[in-house]
Amino acid sequence: MERRTTFDTATADPVDVSKLMLGLVVPRPIGWVGSVDEDGRHNLAPFSFYNVVSAKPPTVVFSPGTRRGAEKDTLANVRRTGEFTLSVVTEEVADAMVLTSGDYPPDVDEFEIAGLTARRGDAVAAPLVAEARAVLECEVTQVVDVGDPPANSVVFGRVLRIHVDPQVLDGTRVRPEELKAVGRMAGDGYTTTAGSLFYRTRPR
Amino acid sequence: MERRTTFDTATADPVDVSKLMLGLVVPRPIGWVGSVDEDGRHNLAPFSFYNVVSAKPPTVVFSPGTRRGAEKDTLANVRRTGEFTLSVVTEEVADAMVLTSGDYPPDVDEFEIAGLTARRGDAVAAPLVAEARAVLECEVTQVVDVGDPPANSVVFGRVLRIHVDPQVLDGTRVRPEELKAVGRMAGDGYTTTAGSLFYRTRPR
Repeated sequence: MERRTTFDTATADPVDVSKLMLGLVVPRPIGWVGSVDEDGRHNLAPFSFYNVVSAKPPTVVFSPGTRRGAEKDTLANVRRTGEFTLSVVTEEVADAMVLTSGDYPPDVDEFEIAGLTARRGDAVAAPLVAEARAVLECEVTQVVDVGDPPANSVVFGRVLRIHVDPQVLDGTRVRPEELKAVGRMAGDGYTTTAGSLFYRTRPR
Repeated sequence: MERRTTFDTATADPVDVSKLMLGLVVPRPIGWVGSVDEDGRHNLAPFSFYNVVSAKPPTVVFSPGTRRGAEKDTLANVRRTGEFTLSVVTEEVADAMVLTSGDYPPDVDEFEIAGLTARRGDAVAAPLVAEARAVLECEVTQVVDVGDPPANSVVFGRVLRIHVDPQVLDGTRVRPEELKAVGRMAGDGYTTTAGSLFYRTRPR
């Protein structure tokens, strides 16, 4: 790093800081969060501030970020109901996922907009994407605020059920070339995974 | 999802649950965490339980998981010093990153093992990878336990400085085809991003 451009986040334009963060922390997995409000209305929206944080107990986090619309609906729903689903975004459903990423009012059912089938979870009442190759059903274990004063929330979820299309499994190993997961880059960018895999053994 | 295999995480083998989680939540970004212990010894290790959780304020999380070795060293260091660096893993440094992923004793300097140059951060004393195309310098804002009893820890970090090679920048937009970031899949699997990009506009 002989030549480098340095940004001090305390003084740089927050929009630039955001663009840099989203461009440098890549590729991000996409959590396609299904939830339900108190009137039983479905909500479905994709979030790339999402990852596993523990394999045992199986725990994920996602953050709705600060945009309007579906994020706030999702956060309100998961706070109230304490549960959500995560449908895995793969190449077959990538365009449907993008359709669910718009800023829609709370009474809009993103499953309908994207032509997807909502199915109720086994362990949770939140809807999942029936067309997805895999789904995680989750219960909220904690919601942690970020920022002072709080500007964002991070939802922690314990995974209760894992549903997988047997075609992408080899025993309990997921076959990445069959799953064809899609990741998130900055801006309007996404990345496929199935055609760009490589393998390296961890040193012992 | 006509046919599906369902796993109840309360009764399934934890090893299988872990394999499924790591295979389905993909591609994961790789946080290559640089830290320093109380005697000034450097530590460098990659973590894929890592992501942005807020753009404003700029905040990342990572979790050391439950393996032995570097994870525990890193967690002990960031708890004690309250700071760390995140070097971005790109194709040029992917093999060096893999070398730093072994389970080494605390007195081993992973920079030396991988032939990398450690440089002190501007805002933090933790070492960064001088060869990296981009680096985030971070201060710890909170450490959240996961599991009851606690089995894992999630480190929240505020990003203080962002260093980027100007060759990967177009203004403040990161050019993904130049950055060539590498993501993490399950097992020994990784994915490149530069050759597998696609673009979709969010609906308005």
